[in-house]
Amino acid sequence: MTPPAPPSIDILALGNAIVDVLTHVDDAQIDALPVNKGGMTLIESITAAALYSALGPGLECSGGSAANTVVGAAMLGARTAFIGRVKNDQLGGIFTHDIRAAGVRFDTPPATDGTDTAMCLVMVTPDAHRTMCTHLGASVELGPDDVDEAVVRDSAVLYLEGYLWDPPGAKEAMRKAIRIAKDAGRAVALSLSDPFCVDRHRADFLELVDNDVDILFANESEITSLYETDDLDSAMHSVTPLVKVVTITRSEHGAVIAGDGDMHIIPAEAAVQVVDTTGAGDLFAAGFLAGWTQGRNLHDCGRMGAVAAAEVISHLGARPEADLRALVSDHLK
Amino acid sequence: MTPPAPPSIDILALGNAIVDVLTHVDDAQIDALPVNKGGMTLIESITAAALYSALGPGLECSGGSAANTVVGAAMLGARTAFIGRVKNDQLGGIFTHDIRAAGVRFDTPPATDGTDTAMCLVMVTPDAHRTMCTHLGASVELGPDDVDEAVVRDSAVLYLEGYLWDPPGAKEAMRKAIRIAKDAGRAVALSLSDPFCVDRHRADFLELVDNDVDILFANESEITSLYETDDLDSAMHSVTPLVKVVTITRSEHGAVIAGDGDMHIIPAEAAVQVVDTTGAGDLFAAGFLAGWTQGRNLHDCGRMGAVAAAEVISHLGARPEADLRALVSDHLK
Repeated sequence: MTPPAPPSIDILALGNAIVDVLTHVDDAQIDALPVNKGGMTLIESITAAALYSALGPGLECSGGSAANTVVGAAMLGARTAFIGRVKNDQLGGIFTHDIRAAGVRFDTPPATDGTDTAMCLVMVTPDAHRTMCTHLGASVELGPDDVDEAVVRDSAVLYLEGYLWDPPGAKEAMRKAIRIAKDAGRAVALSLSDPFCVDRHRADFLELVDNDVDILFANESEITSLYETDDLDSAMHSVTPLVKVVTITRSEHGAVIAGDGDMHIIPAEAAVQVVDTTGAGDLFAAGFLAGWTQGRNLHDCGRMGAVAAAEVISHLGARPEADLRALVSDHLK
Repeated sequence: MTPPAPPSIDILALGNAIVDVLTHVDDAQIDALPVNKGGMTLIESITAAALYSALGPGLECSGGSAANTVVGAAMLGARTAFIGRVKNDQLGGIFTHDIRAAGVRFDTPPATDGTDTAMCLVMVTPDAHRTMCTHLGASVELGPDDVDEAVVRDSAVLYLEGYLWDPPGAKEAMRKAIRIAKDAGRAVALSLSDPFCVDRHRADFLELVDNDVDILFANESEITSLYETDDLDSAMHSVTPLVKVVTITRSEHGAVIAGDGDMHIIPAEAAVQVVDTTGAGDLFAAGFLAGWTQGRNLHDCGRMGAVAAAEVISHLGARPEADLRALVSDHLK
């Protein structure tokens, strides 16, 4: 097999294209809802409207897990692209503007009919944790035809969010992209996204991890959910032989990275004030992959992830506000 | 004349119904645009799209000057209502949700065709000052039929933003509302909004101040623009005989209030960090009017305005995030 040509894109992400509505709530409001505190619940259009009208004033901000990751990676100098579906409505215009303005290539044509651009109601409790309700909207229109073979072949890393296993067409799009990437000798990265998402798609995710994933991103509850165990160590022993690299984020306890036959303990970066944890995992992946595609060692990749995550939890919203590149050069001297 | 029945609404505002797009820019970007730094420039639909595409990622937040004021006043316990026009699109839905969620009565039916809900591109420079470009959109559809006579008669204060003089139908709506309010013995309050807006409508504003306005809100550059003078003292001497109360906000120098034959010097409240001055004048008016409709003295009304303004400049966006009522009871012990 001839070695693949050098890619012109560092990270290509496939994900749900979502605009977040960020609101402050108290714990009683979360308790009264049929949702998993700290998790992501899928909601239908009608429920979305009813829930929205019960919430306080919001701030709107482009989101989407994998989209947040490529935006963060782009801010760290990575060459990035995104595949995901919006509708040609106002929120779709906002999503498109924001991801392109961050330097991410985004060419998926918007849906011209059907449901609106996806919206995620992000409810932030006083403990700074977020509970999310997502109306997938136009994201469910994503399908294999949206995956441009040339772009996948031209990307060093194909990054997939587990959430994309929910819309049926998107699953096919992911499988197609994975086949192309493997065939071209590129790395496949997967984020497990959410423990309840892992519950919904465990068999598929296990099969993916067994066969296709090179770099796996998860937090403690996601990886233990995947292997249906309470014990992180046991889950780590199950997963490490199967992938090249696995990163486990552990909130204020930092992260653990297993790869290259070694284990790295990454401390959390001190955040001045934790305001909203939305996007912490997405930005860890952003920093890690930006480092990885720059050829950095796993420890430094992890530290870049920790720096990017600390930035995004210091304010409302899942897109970085500060100059990530400057933060990384300050912290990784 | 029989005295008016006690009103069931404290403050009814008429204003442009706008969603803000907040972005960080540097001074060079502002210098390159045909806009007034620190001011508000009206832009057409095409220009709006071109400017938007040249800006970085944004945060979306409901805005509109008079709308910000009634939201702030509602958070301080005032009974409030708002008249303004959105379209029945996604941004219109966001505006409607946010103002109602803040406790403001808002019943103006949305436009079902024509241009989109108004959008304001708010460009925040590193000095925390904001420069605004507004696409009036559906706001221009506001007209006298939207002014419900019973609601105006039932409101202690009719609050008008000078910006509303730009859309032609809105001007008629304002004149109708003023006639009803005066006839019912209610107070009419006007914000001069912006020195360039004063330039556009000086003759009308002078006539309003002469004949109809009871409470006038302005900053230094607006009041000096109105009387075409460089001297604040001279402008104050021109305006004080004409209105019951005039409040002049002076940024970090606080405010001056003339009324009841007396002059009050209100110090600025110390803001922890000035992040974005958007909404400072709107929230000063909110605090002032909330105090005024509670029967407080002019000094305390001014201090309530200063507290509300200090909150809104401590973060991005023109709607308060903190508990204004708690802040006021802390500061006005």
